Amino acid sequence: MKNFAGGWFGKLLRINLTDRTSRVEEIDHTVLYKFVGGAALGAKLLYDEVSPGTDPLGPENKLIYAVGPITGTDAPCASRLNLTTKSPLTGTLANSLSGGFFPVEMKWTGLDAIIIEGKAAEPVYVLVRDNKVEIKSAVKYWGLNTQDTQTYLKEDLDDHNIRISCIGPAGENLSLISCIINECRALGRKGVGAVMGSKNLKAIAVRGTKKVPIANQKKFKEIIKEFLKYLGESELVYPVFSKTGSSLAVGATSALGFFPAKNWQDTGVEDLAPHLDSNVFAQYGQTRNRCYRCPVACSQVRMAKTGRYAGISTEGPEYETIYSLGSVLGIKDPAFIIAADRLCDELGLDTISAGVAVGMAMELYERGIFTATDGLELKFGNQEATLTFLRMMAYKEGFAKIFADGTKRAGQAIGNGAGYYAMEVKGLELPAYDVRGAKAHGVNYATAYTGADHNRGYASQEVFGIPIPYPVERLEIKGKGVLAKWNQDFCGCYDVATLCEFPAQMGLMPVAQKLTADLLSGATGCEFTEQGVWQLGERLNNLCRMFNVREGFSRKDDCLPRRLMEEPIKDGLSKGEMISQQDLDFMLDEYYEARGWDKNGIPSAAKLQELGIEDTIKDLPSGS
Amino acid sequence: MKNFAGGWFGKLLRINLTDRTSRVEEIDHTVLYKFVGGAALGAKLLYDEVSPGTDPLGPENKLIYAVGPITGTDAPCASRLNLTTKSPLTGTLANSLSGGFFPVEMKWTGLDAIIIEGKAAEPVYVLVRDNKVEIKSAVKYWGLNTQDTQTYLKEDLDDHNIRISCIGPAGENLSLISCIINECRALGRKGVGAVMGSKNLKAIAVRGTKKVPIANQKKFKEIIKEFLKYLGESELVYPVFSKTGSSLAVGATSALGFFPAKNWQDTGVEDLAPHLDSNVFAQYGQTRNRCYRCPVACSQVRMAKTGRYAGISTEGPEYETIYSLGSVLGIKDPAFIIAADRLCDELGLDTISAGVAVGMAMELYERGIFTATDGLELKFGNQEATLTFLRMMAYKEGFAKIFADGTKRAGQAIGNGAGYYAMEVKGLELPAYDVRGAKAHGVNYATAYTGADHNRGYASQEVFGIPIPYPVERLEIKGKGVLAKWNQDFCGCYDVATLCEFPAQMGLMPVAQKLTADLLSGATGCEFTEQGVWQLGERLNNLCRMFNVREGFSRKDDCLPRRLMEEPIKDGLSKGEMISQQDLDFMLDEYYEARGWDKNGIPSAAKLQELGIEDTIKDLPSGS
Repeated sequence: MKNFAGGWFGKLLRINLTDRTSRVEEIDHTVLYKFVGGAALGAKLLYDEVSPGTDPLGPENKLIYAVGPITGTDAPCASRLNLTTKSPLTGTLANSLSGGFFPVEMKWTGLDAIIIEGKAAEPVYVLVRDNKVEIKSAVKYWGLNTQDTQTYLKEDLDDHNIRISCIGPAGENLSLISCIINECRALGRKGVGAVMGSKNLKAIAVRGTKKVPIANQKKFKEIIKEFLKYLGESELVYPVFSKTGSSLAVGATSALGFFPAKNWQDTGVEDLAPHLDSNVFAQYGQTRNRCYRCPVACSQVRMAKTGRYAGISTEGPEYETIYSLGSVLGIKDPAFIIAADRLCDELGLDTISAGVAVGMAMELYERGIFTATDGLELKFGNQEATLTFLRMMAYKEGFAKIFADGTKRAGQAIGNGAGYYAMEVKGLELPAYDVRGAKAHGVNYATAYTGADHNRGYASQEVFGIPIPYPVERLEIKGKGVLAKWNQDFCGCYDVATLCEFPAQMGLMPVAQKLTADLLSGATGCEFTEQGVWQLGERLNNLCRMFNVREGFSRKDDCLPRRLMEEPIKDGLSKGEMISQQDLDFMLDEYYEARGWDKNGIPSAAKLQELGIEDTIKDLPSGS
Repeated sequence: MKNFAGGWFGKLLRINLTDRTSRVEEIDHTVLYKFVGGAALGAKLLYDEVSPGTDPLGPENKLIYAVGPITGTDAPCASRLNLTTKSPLTGTLANSLSGGFFPVEMKWTGLDAIIIEGKAAEPVYVLVRDNKVEIKSAVKYWGLNTQDTQTYLKEDLDDHNIRISCIGPAGENLSLISCIINECRALGRKGVGAVMGSKNLKAIAVRGTKKVPIANQKKFKEIIKEFLKYLGESELVYPVFSKTGSSLAVGATSALGFFPAKNWQDTGVEDLAPHLDSNVFAQYGQTRNRCYRCPVACSQVRMAKTGRYAGISTEGPEYETIYSLGSVLGIKDPAFIIAADRLCDELGLDTISAGVAVGMAMELYERGIFTATDGLELKFGNQEATLTFLRMMAYKEGFAKIFADGTKRAGQAIGNGAGYYAMEVKGLELPAYDVRGAKAHGVNYATAYTGADHNRGYASQEVFGIPIPYPVERLEIKGKGVLAKWNQDFCGCYDVATLCEFPAQMGLMPVAQKLTADLLSGATGCEFTEQGVWQLGERLNNLCRMFNVREGFSRKDDCLPRRLMEEPIKDGLSKGEMISQQDLDFMLDEYYEARGWDKNGIPSAAKLQELGIEDTIKDLPSGS
């Protein structure tokens, strides 16, 4: 490749908390061109630097923050950040995305990535201001919730424009369902907050003034114009999605009968969903937040206006949280969900995993399998008990400690068949799509390299009926393996280019890869084609799979919760549906074949070679 | 006087919310020299612009923000702001002070004062950035708590260094015990939040870049050095007060037996105070905040570390709040007080008035006088009920509405002798000094122009034994009228000069007026003497008294709650003490005489003349 002329700075900041050192390193140009940024750059660095068998909560694990060549430019929807680490919840590679303003501010420090390694002797935070890197005591912030941490830290630094990524009590207490928060946004899922906590790292604060160079300013501006034009023409984006945010999906999934309720015993079609759809939440609308340079501004700030939660506001709740802190718990009070969402954000608890853990506890309680709750009545619908339980999980207090590391471990700890009620794949709690009624989601949950993760291969075809790449029948098994691969590679492109996936899903799908290629080309001056962008997604998925394969993962781990394979959906438009082991096997076979992987889910050397990640071939299990 | 050469900008910004206009006006030099800034400049403007009989919640009332000539300079402890308005709680002139960073930021816009008048048709906020003044819709912020309002507003303005003074739900709902919050600080007491709410004004945001000119830079720097030297030498300031903040006073007042408990039925010496003193609160210490250019940084950020309030932090609680949300309610759990303090700040409830209102409700509930609480068990010590009740007051929900406008109105509404349990003077709830054991505080509560207001004439002689102006016996009646006048004028100087009162009380007392005079002279280039500074305090007290006199106030209103005049203190070092009507009359006579006022508490024309506020003479009641 020729050298890049813009987009990247070509710099990586390595911070070692054990010996409190830091240094800036050049990133090899070939690596940049092949892995571009975000998820893939993070995965490449993690693959090379974190050996198999590493304890995710040990000093040898690393936290890798990575942005991309268009982060911090004028490109819309590009203020995205990827965090890569080894997940203490799943044992897989973990990759979390977040928007807001932290990503651009990080980029403006002149860095494409930050690697945090080691473990500090006492609580610290990392402060990066352009070229100045400091590791400072965070003793006085330790224990503070995520919002207060940001407020006090800005105040102490006397710079309120600093952007902060931090953990709350849940991450400090090493809860494996903790997340990392910047502003009101989460680097969520997979227990990444605990990794930060295990390093005694309270926060990373960034402030930059460096302009991102653009190789071809004229071209870049034109692509942005085109991007905005397509976005403006999408009927789904404006005025719908822009005004509802992801709560939009409640109407779709509940109408189709795959909006899960009461720990997936139910679909909530009748009694819950009508109280939780976007029209209902619109009544709680207060204002909207946007990520840097985002014309959509899908993030709805909502507030409880009357009653016991009055005055509590949150940025959200997103669709997934309406499920996890609402329908999963048999709760239909939007004001409660707003309050619980805010509480989770403040505690630094992942809302999906935390809610699903509460749901599991409620079902176990009602079934008499787990009742040692110190008098807390953990019945479905009990709001007060939920708030108490959430807080207790964040602090690993009393009996809640059992659930504070996720449902899989809770099932193992409790025994007595409790594991059947753990709604997780590879340890990661399920997002809000009942895969029995949306099969491509099922393949994705089973195979995504991070566990049951809707963001790694979202099947918008099944939710919104988008006929791309082709019209899809959501209950059909056949073709879903191929579709899941398509979706995963499609989503992967955005995780690599650090573009928000929403616009692509909502209206840009037909032109998204072309626009992405043009934006990357315009920014960097290197050549990216539509096909090349597709390959970015595929490369990411194979590289991450290889990380997991190296850790011992294979077909045996590509599974679904037993409930979904044994109990059919009870009512609604997906009534009677389930995914039997046979169905899953069929879809996995198809998926592996489409991927060029063997029957055991192991990538072929040829595929790895084709994708230019031939240095991972040595890690293939012998005999594969 | 000669024209000023620094300190003041000589500018006032007048904003009319009714017709959405604004204009900058010159402030007459004579007015500036005579009233200087802060409380006196505010009182002068209010006196001239708000006629007697004005409805405090009507559009004719005005909110006047005033700073002074040393605000925003390098002078330490000078980031103070005064808000003057007519109080809807007391009907008197209201004056509230706050520190932090808003005061300096306001000054840097190039203004000495901002007057808000009229009433907006729908919620608005005022944005002042140097010379640019905007009145903008606040519809989307209406309902948000004070912390979220600041966060979202900064985010929307994409300027996190903007400083915001705002109301929460309590002010919006016109609760007469609401306050105005900037950062975590309050313009408290007297229902000033309701005045802001009545104008449909959610917030004032300021951002300035103008340097305050200093007339005599060299002299000014020397005085600052001297100020810091004296401060550094004070044993009370360092290391004690700096590390404890005002919680320091719990030990003193409880040891002397005048730390009130359980709605003033008790002194809390035995069962409460030992759990609430500064050593206990130190265990909750997290970090410290400072106002701009304050070397003391008395503001302790404390956090509950375990239990149900874990992770909740607050800037405080200050001594008064330890009383009002602790001992007054029979509560000795510091974690609860931290949580309740935070809740009040977020709701925009004045912590003293709100806590004392809860205390009254609890006593009425226990005595069976008021039990219609919809099942809420309002017994002393009930934490959960307190949190619910506080929230309900802010929203004027249900039965709590009766208490949401303060204890005086609650007593009137409930009848049946309930008023006896309203611990207030002129409608303002009592601060944390049981005046039965500290008589000068009693005279001050009875006579301060804002009602029972410890800040208007703090008798540190009785709390800390400071022998200035002379050694004082706290239980003695004789001399306390004279002392109260001295204290009121002493405190008044700081409210006018916009210097924090704490350093003066804690160690600078002997040299405070001289230093203040020198700072004012150095900044402005006008001549201020020690005697002149004393006169600033006296002028303020007389001008404000005249505002009240014009509203019909006189000796009849200079009273104390009946309980304090009929029930002796039950135990501790002040056991048996009370202030009989005879005692109070004696002290009032002495006080009025010291003030040059007649037996009815009306200033003499001669005194008004002497103080240069002869234009108020026309407002003296006929026959006085």
